[in-house]
Amino acid sequence: MIKAIGYAATSTTAPLAPFSFERRDPTPQDVHIEILYCGVCHSDLHQVKGDWGRTSYPCVPGHEIVGRVVSVGSAVTKFKAGDIAAVGCMVDSCRVCPSCAEGVEQYCEKGATFTYNAPDKHTGGVTYGGYANSIVVDESFTLKVPANLDLAGAAPLLCAGITTYSPLRHWKVGAGQKVAVVGLGGLGHMGVKFARAFGAHVVVLTTSEKKKADALALGAHEAVLSTSKEEMKAHRNSFHFILDTVSAPHDVNALLGLLKRDGTLCQVGLPSEPIPVGVFNLVGQRRQFAGSSIGGIAETQEMLDFCGQHNIVCDIEKIDIQQVNEAYERLVRSDVKYRFVIDMASLQKEAGAR
Amino acid sequence: MIKAIGYAATSTTAPLAPFSFERRDPTPQDVHIEILYCGVCHSDLHQVKGDWGRTSYPCVPGHEIVGRVVSVGSAVTKFKAGDIAAVGCMVDSCRVCPSCAEGVEQYCEKGATFTYNAPDKHTGGVTYGGYANSIVVDESFTLKVPANLDLAGAAPLLCAGITTYSPLRHWKVGAGQKVAVVGLGGLGHMGVKFARAFGAHVVVLTTSEKKKADALALGAHEAVLSTSKEEMKAHRNSFHFILDTVSAPHDVNALLGLLKRDGTLCQVGLPSEPIPVGVFNLVGQRRQFAGSSIGGIAETQEMLDFCGQHNIVCDIEKIDIQQVNEAYERLVRSDVKYRFVIDMASLQKEAGAR
Repeated sequence: MIKAIGYAATSTTAPLAPFSFERRDPTPQDVHIEILYCGVCHSDLHQVKGDWGRTSYPCVPGHEIVGRVVSVGSAVTKFKAGDIAAVGCMVDSCRVCPSCAEGVEQYCEKGATFTYNAPDKHTGGVTYGGYANSIVVDESFTLKVPANLDLAGAAPLLCAGITTYSPLRHWKVGAGQKVAVVGLGGLGHMGVKFARAFGAHVVVLTTSEKKKADALALGAHEAVLSTSKEEMKAHRNSFHFILDTVSAPHDVNALLGLLKRDGTLCQVGLPSEPIPVGVFNLVGQRRQFAGSSIGGIAETQEMLDFCGQHNIVCDIEKIDIQQVNEAYERLVRSDVKYRFVIDMASLQKEAGAR
Repeated sequence: MIKAIGYAATSTTAPLAPFSFERRDPTPQDVHIEILYCGVCHSDLHQVKGDWGRTSYPCVPGHEIVGRVVSVGSAVTKFKAGDIAAVGCMVDSCRVCPSCAEGVEQYCEKGATFTYNAPDKHTGGVTYGGYANSIVVDESFTLKVPANLDLAGAAPLLCAGITTYSPLRHWKVGAGQKVAVVGLGGLGHMGVKFARAFGAHVVVLTTSEKKKADALALGAHEAVLSTSKEEMKAHRNSFHFILDTVSAPHDVNALLGLLKRDGTLCQVGLPSEPIPVGVFNLVGQRRQFAGSSIGGIAETQEMLDFCGQHNIVCDIEKIDIQQVNEAYERLVRSDVKYRFVIDMASLQKEAGAR
């Protein structure tokens, strides 16, 4: 086994703190990665706080991982020691169900193995994520990072990037279309970058007047204050697609009314409570209320390659792991542009935990 | 003007009663139809009771109309006097917006002119529907009924038929697919007939154990008691498409969980109150919650022709118009297999109202 150190929560109320554990001995299919950067996703916070009611403690979060390959198993062909490798939200799946066969492992019918807080087939325990100095992952669930991308800025592509890229591709967003991105956080800012890169007319809907300028700076063509009935009214029946990144409770019906006939509102934010949907709002223009979850491994690689070609990374604020609890507090206040990324070199200060 | 007689409600609480009014003098584009049969749709009841909060009284409901042409305007080419003609939920639309241009007038961006309780461009009043002895309608919004169909059984095709046919076609339901029809009323029983005719494996979900046998008799391959967790569990993640015809409040989340990845639940029933939708239920398998409204004129004709080819009509109970208030009471109790159709010959008894 490989000794590892990371940051874990031990209960719903405990702050993240240093935690020593072990990674499995690499199998012939495994890649052993020294983690350089890990993004801080809002899901990490929900999971450590037990908001979704199914957290196993200790919980080492983190699923936006970029690192350097330490060693590879004998059957590994994609990497050699010293290469840069990335890991996203999944580290395994059943590999045989129709979803896995079609390359959408995130919808694995047996349930994909998520990077943290999931039953670990190898150890019998739970998976531990990327707030750590290393990880061991099956080659099939590792990704390559284009050489021109900043590694810290690339880390959140593994969740915030693919979570917005995948639905925009699935619903064929592109030139000649008007697209709304609701919420300008970690997911929203990537939604804007991708929708713009795909050629759509991009409108950001935000509850914050001061985020309007940020939206335009990120590439949006327009920014709308969603709390203003006047501003919203001007966009009624006009959007082909709405990407809703908001995970707080919010009025989806006001958004559905902005869709054209046959338009889709896709939720990628994850409100804990059911959202009331007015059926007349759907029926009246054959609208659809949908949801989408991350992306498959092949599509994640496609997204990374697209980012390489278009020089797209996330806008980030780099932090030391010792600042992660403070970062969580700021995350709750949306006080970050637009993603915290932990510089894992800072873990070396935690010698006491080794 | 043409003197007409029908049945109208004069308030939210008044029973339907004889009502004398006038139809416009036919324009060159108009068809003057003597109404032979009119179906009784649950929407009629909602509208006369003011459940949707926008009823103009007196209200003459009825939008499932089959009749005989009395006379045609000079520009009419589709009909001559003596022909059988049908009229559905719409009698006009703007005819120039993208939806009208694409032949989906039900989604007219200016709002289609519905057959009753809509602003009437010709009279300046409101439109009066098919619980009447005649109607005058622009040829563009009239339909032909295949000669082999029973006229009374064909009447409800104009709403219950097209409302179920259109979404099944739009979402490409066919052979190799497993489809659920939720609710076995006027809409549901037609959903079963069409889904079966399109080649799908059809499962009826009903809250009534005794409706199971009816579902199988109508052509369903299976019938499931939706109140039984055990029976529902056996169908988890298995449906390509769910046609939900229920307009009462009901648990849509339990239904969404029955959809396969990328499956759609389409609501054609119209619950008055917003329906709570669990977002995890959508996101987990990229499911969609959608709605659909009747169908365009071209598709309604396509549906009627399909019914002619496959000998499909609605299962009906014929009533005299004097029984319509009693029929409404029975409708509330779902005590009809599966649609009341008014035999308009019975209106001749209302000489006193002429």
